Amino acid sequence: MVTPDAAPAAGTALRVGVVGLGLVGGSVARLLHDQGVEVTAHDATASTRAAARAAGLRVVGDVADVCAAEPDVLVLAVPLRAMRAVATEVARHVRGATVVTDVGSVKGAVRDAVRSAGLDARYVGAHPMAGTERSGFEASDPRMLDGARWAVTVDGTTRREAFVTVLRLVTGPLGGTVHVLTDDVHDESTALVSHVPHVLATELLGVVADAPVRDVARGLAAGSFRDATRVGRTDPRRTEAMVTDNAAWVASALRVVVRDLEQLLTALESNAPVGEFFDRPDPVRGPADAPGTGELLRVVLDDAGAWRAEVTAAGARGAVVVAVEDDAVVVA
Amino acid sequence: MVTPDAAPAAGTALRVGVVGLGLVGGSVARLLHDQGVEVTAHDATASTRAAARAAGLRVVGDVADVCAAEPDVLVLAVPLRAMRAVATEVARHVRGATVVTDVGSVKGAVRDAVRSAGLDARYVGAHPMAGTERSGFEASDPRMLDGARWAVTVDGTTRREAFVTVLRLVTGPLGGTVHVLTDDVHDESTALVSHVPHVLATELLGVVADAPVRDVARGLAAGSFRDATRVGRTDPRRTEAMVTDNAAWVASALRVVVRDLEQLLTALESNAPVGEFFDRPDPVRGPADAPGTGELLRVVLDDAGAWRAEVTAAGARGAVVVAVEDDAVVVA
Repeated sequence: MVTPDAAPAAGTALRVGVVGLGLVGGSVARLLHDQGVEVTAHDATASTRAAARAAGLRVVGDVADVCAAEPDVLVLAVPLRAMRAVATEVARHVRGATVVTDVGSVKGAVRDAVRSAGLDARYVGAHPMAGTERSGFEASDPRMLDGARWAVTVDGTTRREAFVTVLRLVTGPLGGTVHVLTDDVHDESTALVSHVPHVLATELLGVVADAPVRDVARGLAAGSFRDATRVGRTDPRRTEAMVTDNAAWVASALRVVVRDLEQLLTALESNAPVGEFFDRPDPVRGPADAPGTGELLRVVLDDAGAWRAEVTAAGARGAVVVAVEDDAVVVA
Repeated sequence: MVTPDAAPAAGTALRVGVVGLGLVGGSVARLLHDQGVEVTAHDATASTRAAARAAGLRVVGDVADVCAAEPDVLVLAVPLRAMRAVATEVARHVRGATVVTDVGSVKGAVRDAVRSAGLDARYVGAHPMAGTERSGFEASDPRMLDGARWAVTVDGTTRREAFVTVLRLVTGPLGGTVHVLTDDVHDESTALVSHVPHVLATELLGVVADAPVRDVARGLAAGSFRDATRVGRTDPRRTEAMVTDNAAWVASALRVVVRDLEQLLTALESNAPVGEFFDRPDPVRGPADAPGTGELLRVVLDDAGAWRAEVTAAGARGAVVVAVEDDAVVVA
């Protein structure tokens, strides 16, 4: 198999392939197109291909055609359930130095699918923290990615050239702020800040739906309920897929939630003190700090591969990428 | 004891007293003042009285002075923990036909305090569903109440004249849309749409605060987390008070939440189907309907008092007040 052996130099215009033109894939393709990047896109649905063409994108008829364009980066923007089949198709046709990435909301499971397809030497995971309640190409919008935080994930096999190429794409034309993480740190973190919030929003709506006072509750619902349940109004199948794709980390976080809520309700029933429950969020209650740790670190992308542990350890402390060189990455 | 025996006629300018000038009391007083209502206000804190005077309100030095102004309605806008003492003070000085109401987020406990003070013949409960993360007079804003849904609560002892007076105040100068409810229906409903959402937002922040991936989680947090946790960033003492004031209904709702989340996480861990969890909110997933039931009902405020059960039964079905007459209320 031919694998990439040199990242495009800084300043070189990247060429990008996008497979899957839903909310995220569509937004990525359109943002790159707006930024002057040469994009070759494909979607399995004919009407989506037509809509994407009408929006000015260069759309091709199948995955093989995307691969044949020899993009510097090929973005797999399909749902996890389709990932294995699409990755296998890509593996069959990919050539040259094309690097493969994705935009999925769970990273361990995508890596498994990519590895099964034999694409792991080309692969670097990516995930933009951006979305809306809507879905599909018609909901896609380049502005959805404005100032987004991205996770870029590496493991013990990630090639530095592929890593640098994906970082250049995300921090360059995609305009993202990047946290470099292991798959596990990503999947645990997104369980906490995205998947569990979706579950709780769904549960809040579900409790109201089943309540004898449902009509009054809906009538009295004000801003706090609207905000708390906004993501519970998403397409339930999409939310279900997101949660089940990350089932282990979500279940583990929900165990903590169940334990805490049980303690709280027992205290409420017995008139015991509950102040601690309300003080516990103090360390994170204020507005989020500026991105990163404030502590500059230059990680040389050494041949031995020690950079992988170094850059993900910094990522786990909250560091973000501030500069990308051919043989080093600066985080802070 | 002198009790009110006639509501001010429709169109008569109401005079209102407000005791307690925090976020809600301050907003109520300022909105009424802006609407040309004669407001006499008091707060226990001297600096708040000064701020309220600077904002143009007529502020008096103690509760007795508010009572002496013989307002048509006296609004108790103090925290529940202060309610019993303030209600007792009001009972000592109130005179004439003054009706007593409040703006507290829990209605059963306020009624208990008011009844202990011997004010129940004058009392009708009220609660605007509006707020912000901030608190105190400096955060008060008449616009906070723009288009707010209000609960007005009655029980078996509520006098019709007092009821009509409070309805005229809330639907008139306060511009509210009113659901007439029993205390229990109110307290169960607000547990679901306000207090439990505050608990879950607090828990989400608490889980992140304690997580090993805390810094990454905060870094990756996007709109869904910000919205889901907005009310968890409120003053923890205020949230704690709101939750403990309504402890029984909150605990009962949390039991349901714990049961549901336990079922979900067990299913996630065993790879069992979870689709039902995500479909359950379907009946309430869409945007809220226009207020009310669409079914007009004129409730005559009969001497026998059957109106109380009739109007709260309609309220429990989601009806809102559409017209207030001297001897009848129209809901729909």
